[in-house]
Amino acid sequence: MSSPGKSPRASAAVISSRDNRWLKEFRVALRGGLPTESGAVGVEGARLTEEALSSGCRIEAVLFSESGRRHHARLAPYLDRAEIAFPVLYTTDRLFEGVADTEHPQGIAALVEPRKFSFDDILRPSLSGSAPLLAVLAGVQDPGNVGTILRTAAAFGATATITSASGQSGTASPFSPKALRASAGATLHLPLLAGPALPILLAQLHTSKIRTLATSSHADEAALAPWDVDWREPVALLIGNEGVGLPEEIERSASARVRIPMSGGIESLNAAAAAAVLFYEAARQRNTLPI
Amino acid sequence: MSSPGKSPRASAAVISSRDNRWLKEFRVALRGGLPTESGAVGVEGARLTEEALSSGCRIEAVLFSESGRRHHARLAPYLDRAEIAFPVLYTTDRLFEGVADTEHPQGIAALVEPRKFSFDDILRPSLSGSAPLLAVLAGVQDPGNVGTILRTAAAFGATATITSASGQSGTASPFSPKALRASAGATLHLPLLAGPALPILLAQLHTSKIRTLATSSHADEAALAPWDVDWREPVALLIGNEGVGLPEEIERSASARVRIPMSGGIESLNAAAAAAVLFYEAARQRNTLPI
Repeated sequence: MSSPGKSPRASAAVISSRDNRWLKEFRVALRGGLPTESGAVGVEGARLTEEALSSGCRIEAVLFSESGRRHHARLAPYLDRAEIAFPVLYTTDRLFEGVADTEHPQGIAALVEPRKFSFDDILRPSLSGSAPLLAVLAGVQDPGNVGTILRTAAAFGATATITSASGQSGTASPFSPKALRASAGATLHLPLLAGPALPILLAQLHTSKIRTLATSSHADEAALAPWDVDWREPVALLIGNEGVGLPEEIERSASARVRIPMSGGIESLNAAAAAAVLFYEAARQRNTLPI
Repeated sequence: MSSPGKSPRASAAVISSRDNRWLKEFRVALRGGLPTESGAVGVEGARLTEEALSSGCRIEAVLFSESGRRHHARLAPYLDRAEIAFPVLYTTDRLFEGVADTEHPQGIAALVEPRKFSFDDILRPSLSGSAPLLAVLAGVQDPGNVGTILRTAAAFGATATITSASGQSGTASPFSPKALRASAGATLHLPLLAGPALPILLAQLHTSKIRTLATSSHADEAALAPWDVDWREPVALLIGNEGVGLPEEIERSASARVRIPMSGGIESLNAAAAAAVLFYEAARQRNTLPI
């Protein structure tokens, strides 16, 4: 039934035992949501695997189940090349289900090593030549919100993302399966700096002449409306915890505070909707979006 | 232990049997997510119950559990009045858990009858005097998205909402417990017309000189960017299904199509984030938000 283009390569390994080392790695990364020893994270499904293969990140391995082979044609441009340096593995549907994180797995997954960026890296001029527009997540705890905010930031031309470990709570990992799914792969494309402590990061941003804008979640007369911010300057938007916002000392030490005015007795938007509005306003002013 | 202000009123009923008629009504509305025979819907938790009591909608009954009585003080302004026409009921924590929809119920709930609006009602001039800005949900299937879009629309000054039964799929009920929770109560405050068929509604809007704007979810050169729309005119924004958008014939028969430009290889935003961006742009142009 298989045509030459779709059949496993001669060098591809077929895995039929649950004790296989690769299956264990996939299980840790997908079901466990943890990085492998070499620092790779797991992505699942045809779309995310394609995002991983097209991201330029190092791929550690790709795994198909029997029924997942129907996605092979879609991924062939990335897989059917003589020079690829990673194994393409095949296993049974049953063994695949044992490592997958989703209830109805699509039968295709990859281990991918996110690129590592330094603070200087993320300030490099963007391809479009526009000034830095950074999304700084500080205490966003829901992995779905983390992923959605990254996706929204990427959609509206953010040049990089920073997830800070600071605050009482820390930020959920952008590389967990749920966050990766919600980001629709943006996490692998957008330069991302993970882990700096917020006070140190703020000092670095000030030194680099990046304006820090704290999103304010409470009534605050000194806060700017989104349209009163000049988003064409180099800007880092600080986004705090879903419930309590940013730590007070961070709000105070930022260059300015921004608050989305609301009517109708509504006191807050959800974190992802608020981020969408602010990055949209930045994109509108920067006029960087393709029409 | 109870002070006079917090004790049940003399006329308040204490329910100790699971066969009680009121408990059955609360069970249908909360756990079942269905309207009661008289058309009331159930809301749960201190915040939503307060929204219901302050909405001006007819209240059918309020129910406290033993531990829920701690919320009595917050609701006292609405409950401790001689003229209230609905029963305030008390029951045990165990019986309350049997009717609640949430895993860890707060022990306070209400049955509330949403106001009914006609097409003419929702076009009445808004309190702020601004032109109609209508959110039309046509095929939004996730109750959480329905609620979040209503909350966002209210926050950005929408004057009314319409949920259409049309499309292959219909729109999730805005009165289900999940949608009501996601709306943070906006569903009970914003005028809402439920159920018109989309083609008939479009004809009515055209006759009433309301511009219909179809959100377009695919590449579409003729679609306007949000900032190219004049949102100060009377406008109805049509929001389609999360996966497939609006039916094609509706996109074609609308006055215009609007599409949020995106960069970074991102092809779509989630429905609630997209609605937030569009209603924000409307509010920005209308300049109706309190600062």
